[in-house]
Amino acid sequence: MEFSEYFPVWDAMTPQQQEAVSAGLVSRTVKKGTLLHGGGRECTGLLLVQSGQLRAFILSSEGREITIYRLFDRDICLFSASCIMRSIQFDIAVTAEKDTQLWIIPAEVYKRIMEQSAAVANYTNEIMASRFSEVMWLMEQVMWNSMDRRVAGFLLQEASIEGTDRLHITHDSIAAHLGTHREVVTRMLRYFQSEGMVKLARSAVELTDRAKLEALGG
Amino acid sequence: MEFSEYFPVWDAMTPQQQEAVSAGLVSRTVKKGTLLHGGGRECTGLLLVQSGQLRAFILSSEGREITIYRLFDRDICLFSASCIMRSIQFDIAVTAEKDTQLWIIPAEVYKRIMEQSAAVANYTNEIMASRFSEVMWLMEQVMWNSMDRRVAGFLLQEASIEGTDRLHITHDSIAAHLGTHREVVTRMLRYFQSEGMVKLARSAVELTDRAKLEALGG
Repeated sequence: MEFSEYFPVWDAMTPQQQEAVSAGLVSRTVKKGTLLHGGGRECTGLLLVQSGQLRAFILSSEGREITIYRLFDRDICLFSASCIMRSIQFDIAVTAEKDTQLWIIPAEVYKRIMEQSAAVANYTNEIMASRFSEVMWLMEQVMWNSMDRRVAGFLLQEASIEGTDRLHITHDSIAAHLGTHREVVTRMLRYFQSEGMVKLARSAVELTDRAKLEALGG
Repeated sequence: MEFSEYFPVWDAMTPQQQEAVSAGLVSRTVKKGTLLHGGGRECTGLLLVQSGQLRAFILSSEGREITIYRLFDRDICLFSASCIMRSIQFDIAVTAEKDTQLWIIPAEVYKRIMEQSAAVANYTNEIMASRFSEVMWLMEQVMWNSMDRRVAGFLLQEASIEGTDRLHITHDSIAAHLGTHREVVTRMLRYFQSEGMVKLARSAVELTDRAKLEALGG
């Protein structure tokens, strides 16, 4: 598949702009677990996912993590190119959650085109608004929802992404998604197991009563 | 003062666009406490503060609140006009925290100009990125900071906004800013008082040891 088919405002760009993007474009294939953007002030570029799955998260000074959003096929990550806008004053880190094929659009190329083109600037606006909506959803979860609801919701979301009720995931990794401690997750999963909602195995969680989980986390 | 002096991209608009904004513009003077945007799907328009202070917040289904950001002179509120972008999928409410003079730019007028003008679209991007940065800061506070640090930080921020160490504020109102319960705030302030950091009076909190508060909340 061509980049132009993945980039929704391709046709709105001038031939010169298309040329500049094509010339700067980097295509990468990365293994699951690869750190694509380190969470510092570096300007890696915009990441456009061809296939695979990325995870954007923030880190506390003590090394705790929380997932901010995830990116799937055709999604684009703006905040790995925070230098395109003066007002982006925060840092995220991005890793590959699955083997991923992606394109990297250099920040300075994108910035120049965005400044010229209303279509590209408005496309950027829509991407940012969409991530903003995800972060506001997360804020509401963190503020108003108890941890049992958040763990239940996370398990259901994972099952839907993976297309299976048997999840290969560690308690550590669930904790890093939700911004909590492993012990909290372990305690919660044991409680879920005692209620018949899940079955725990080594590095795996099986959803055994979806209806009950949905009543809690949906 | 003229609207054109408060709107940074005025000179980048065409005479027709300037004409459209001027024709649609509403100037309002509201009293402290006025609800300007209700937190529903209505599209009130963009709010540009001439003088005064606004507060944007979200509400839980149980009526708890948390302050998302504040707007001062020359600041603009985008999310009171969420219909300008399809991807804005969350609702905020906006009230006046002080007597405020502001302009309301109708959403449909702004949307049309933003679609035509790269300058206006990029200005919109910068506003959104700036609010996004504030929400990410808040997310970090909520996730990684304990409530004592957050209360101390809030008191210092208020003192800096108000230009005084004697704050006329209720425990209820502090709780609504921070997204917690009044009882939690009261307990914390009493602890601060016992440590000599504040002096409590009826509807007032006086900061008596800034250095200690800063060590905690800065």
